Amino acid sequence: MGANMARRLKEVGYKVTAVHDINKGAAVALGKEIGAEACNKLTRVTELADVIITVVTDDKAQLALFAAKGDSLLKGKKGVAKGRVFVNCATVSPDIHIKVEKLVKKAGARSLEGCMASSINQARTGTLYLMVGGDLETYEDVKPILSKLSDDGKLMRRIGKTGQAAQLKALVNMVMNINTAGLAEGLGLANSLGLDLKTVMEVFSQTGANSRVLATDGDDMVNRDHSCFFSAAHAAKDSGIALGIAKKQKLKLPLATATFAQYTKLTKLGYGALDKSGIAELTFKGRGASTKKK
Amino acid sequence: MGANMARRLKEVGYKVTAVHDINKGAAVALGKEIGAEACNKLTRVTELADVIITVVTDDKAQLALFAAKGDSLLKGKKGVAKGRVFVNCATVSPDIHIKVEKLVKKAGARSLEGCMASSINQARTGTLYLMVGGDLETYEDVKPILSKLSDDGKLMRRIGKTGQAAQLKALVNMVMNINTAGLAEGLGLANSLGLDLKTVMEVFSQTGANSRVLATDGDDMVNRDHSCFFSAAHAAKDSGIALGIAKKQKLKLPLATATFAQYTKLTKLGYGALDKSGIAELTFKGRGASTKKK
Repeated sequence: MGANMARRLKEVGYKVTAVHDINKGAAVALGKEIGAEACNKLTRVTELADVIITVVTDDKAQLALFAAKGDSLLKGKKGVAKGRVFVNCATVSPDIHIKVEKLVKKAGARSLEGCMASSINQARTGTLYLMVGGDLETYEDVKPILSKLSDDGKLMRRIGKTGQAAQLKALVNMVMNINTAGLAEGLGLANSLGLDLKTVMEVFSQTGANSRVLATDGDDMVNRDHSCFFSAAHAAKDSGIALGIAKKQKLKLPLATATFAQYTKLTKLGYGALDKSGIAELTFKGRGASTKKK
Repeated sequence: MGANMARRLKEVGYKVTAVHDINKGAAVALGKEIGAEACNKLTRVTELADVIITVVTDDKAQLALFAAKGDSLLKGKKGVAKGRVFVNCATVSPDIHIKVEKLVKKAGARSLEGCMASSINQARTGTLYLMVGGDLETYEDVKPILSKLSDDGKLMRRIGKTGQAAQLKALVNMVMNINTAGLAEGLGLANSLGLDLKTVMEVFSQTGANSRVLATDGDDMVNRDHSCFFSAAHAAKDSGIALGIAKKQKLKLPLATATFAQYTKLTKLGYGALDKSGIAELTFKGRGASTKKK
């Protein structure tokens, strides 16, 4: 994800000065490709760049980037982070963005949430759907850069203050995952009845059963093509974040709960690296995951 | 539904000879409006018409129309049903269509399933989405009439033999209900967080959270406009039919199960007459149904 964003920014004329990856080899290769320094230490990234875009896997990794101890984006030379803007694009809990914002402010820097509702291909082509949370002024300052990642800004929205973009992102993925798990049930049942799945999908597409995931995941469910754009493990994680928010709001969400359980089950069965469409492996008779016990 | 189909057929030049309704007054009014006889007895409908379209509320009512005892479409003068074609448009269990087909055959008549995936307005304008099940020959025979109800046939598909259209219809509604109940969870949670719901729906519409029900039910959920196109009680019934089919197939469908429970709960709380969008009354804080105990 981050690599493709860097490629895109380089392509449209930005100087990408530094890259970093926990997989050092990936960083070196990318650095060579786009003429950036592959940094050994996070603090070196902050030294080299005015605007730093981060994409990590989860809450813990996001916090670690800004940790007070060890190597982090805020450590190193005194005042190194001053005036920097950190744009944090991973899907993490809203609270984490608020914590990060506090840490960053203390270091004399600023931060934004840049939650993405798209996938690797969109990162490469600069057509990410970006939901931005944070200070309006900071948003305006980095808008030119972020616009180049979001179809000249047509796919970018400022949602509100820090934390609110992550909330909305969690809601988007919660609803998307529900629709995906629901579609897998519909197609799985249709398949068990011997209905023609092409006709079924065509009828779904023209009726109240239509959804974005029918277009993106329907064929993949039928063809068992689960090459990964957005993994089942991530789907479990994101539905979990949404349920955590709901719990704080004292809201019971039975469908989100059932969806979280399905993706968690799929992940525990060893299929977490499949695309989210892989949930169909649980609902089509005779497929791997449907025949295993948890 | 039936009344609007009759109005449409009359409008495009068909002679609608007979109408019947368990609400006698409705039949009389409609009969006057379109120049048809408002029949007291079902058997009189069969006497007057070559092609009889039925729309009832549930399995029991569908079977009763073709009952061997009492007033039914197959009783009355000996051989009255001979050569007639019955097109049964209600959403009922697939097995019921198969039973009806047997009863009708015995009486020397023929039948088709004409499952509808649309609502009252589409019946009036002749733009119903029709999924037809049954004999190919019978289908061809009544195609001209049914085409006038389905945008000159553009919205009509023959799905397969009798029972299969009802199966697919149950699947369509199962998935639609899942998406609707899921959307209500997303919007309810967004509302509890104080997010701007217009922005939320716009973001949903441009991301993986998009669905047909977002367009048809999103605003209604926010505005609590639950005037009925497709009732919550019907949603419960249809999800129940799908789960019945799944049970026979030995498939476990957690999302369909959760959706059925939500619509059943809403109905038991006394909100079954609301539109299916009324499910949001369960997921928005402080709304009527969300504060009641079952």
